[in-house]
Amino acid sequence: MRLSLLGGTGDIGKGLALRFAADTDHDVIIGSRDPDKAHSAAESYEQTLAEHGHEAKITGFENPMAADRADCVVLAVPPYHVTDTLSSVVSRLSDDAVIITPAAGLTRDEDGFHYRPPSAGSVTTLVADAAPESNPVVGAFHNLAAGRLADLSLELGIDTLVLGDDRNATEMICTLIEEIDGLRALKAGPLANAAEVESLTPLLINIAQQNDGLHDLGVQFK
Amino acid sequence: MRLSLLGGTGDIGKGLALRFAADTDHDVIIGSRDPDKAHSAAESYEQTLAEHGHEAKITGFENPMAADRADCVVLAVPPYHVTDTLSSVVSRLSDDAVIITPAAGLTRDEDGFHYRPPSAGSVTTLVADAAPESNPVVGAFHNLAAGRLADLSLELGIDTLVLGDDRNATEMICTLIEEIDGLRALKAGPLANAAEVESLTPLLINIAQQNDGLHDLGVQFK
Repeated sequence: MRLSLLGGTGDIGKGLALRFAADTDHDVIIGSRDPDKAHSAAESYEQTLAEHGHEAKITGFENPMAADRADCVVLAVPPYHVTDTLSSVVSRLSDDAVIITPAAGLTRDEDGFHYRPPSAGSVTTLVADAAPESNPVVGAFHNLAAGRLADLSLELGIDTLVLGDDRNATEMICTLIEEIDGLRALKAGPLANAAEVESLTPLLINIAQQNDGLHDLGVQFK
Repeated sequence: MRLSLLGGTGDIGKGLALRFAADTDHDVIIGSRDPDKAHSAAESYEQTLAEHGHEAKITGFENPMAADRADCVVLAVPPYHVTDTLSSVVSRLSDDAVIITPAAGLTRDEDGFHYRPPSAGSVTTLVADAAPESNPVVGAFHNLAAGRLADLSLELGIDTLVLGDDRNATEMICTLIEEIDGLRALKAGPLANAAEVESLTPLLINIAQQNDGLHDLGVQFK
């Protein structure tokens, strides 16, 4: 499978790239607005993987080129960039490429982090509204701490929640996710349930800030 | 400590009553609008506890009487009853009794359950707005499945999130919570962070509905 991480030079893109390259045989492609940054990020990830004993090939391109022929495209960009990133690649998307969105809308004040969805109801539905009709949108990876993903010496042992209206695409992404060691995919229902999933992102940050010894917090449902 | 569970004849009240009576030495008092219901619930809980080898005394009263001289009062009622339940007992509350609120505002449609806070921003802040100034309000127990609490043969091994603006009251409730075997209290910050905590309630129901083999779902942060 060809797995394209748009904005893959950022924190969550890095974490996903390293884990997918370490634990699966899929082609991992880093996309960025700047092809040089994509290329050097890919090289740096290869080096990190080599230091952990994984011989993996990661490539880096400008976002539209990275999305070309991809089976899955992850919009690993901040929430205010999801729609422009998507529209910059849409002409290159395969008809049935699955678009994965991990972003959540947050604000911060003196009390902590809060969930502030866009008017579409959630960032996930914002992406779905902007996506071509033929491309299924799946929400996933919202609740993963980037630093924990990127540290390959850490066992994960956590869950990620998956949202989707297209049953086949949702099942495919659940299967893909569980190829990462220690990561369990749990379905959270259709995209209309995204706000409750995205709300977990600020909650995890608040809990990590309020309790000694907790950081890069994940969650396990049991 | 005198621990009063208003609405303690309901599901979450039952679960908390059984766990506190089984695992701690605190006085557990069941409150209800109907004193007969409170009394027979208390008897039935005592019987359940006896079946599990716990000799415990639980008493039942009408809500105002149950709240009398309580150190902690849990508003174990549906969200649309929190303010009238609180106002029905307020004249009987000790000056420094801690008011604990576990309710979350939910709606349900064909996609699943959704978080719908009242205009106060959360049920937790709604309670805080209605509480006397001298009585600290703490949010806790939002994310506990009643059925799991009430089944004393199950080990918990899960977390509950605690919200509070009063540091001493929050610490006291965290300590109280951790007297229940297998329940860890994690702080989620001031009451202003309550919406993200309450959002976990519909999320847990959605996940349980969408994944085979999961029910009475809890959460562990790690």
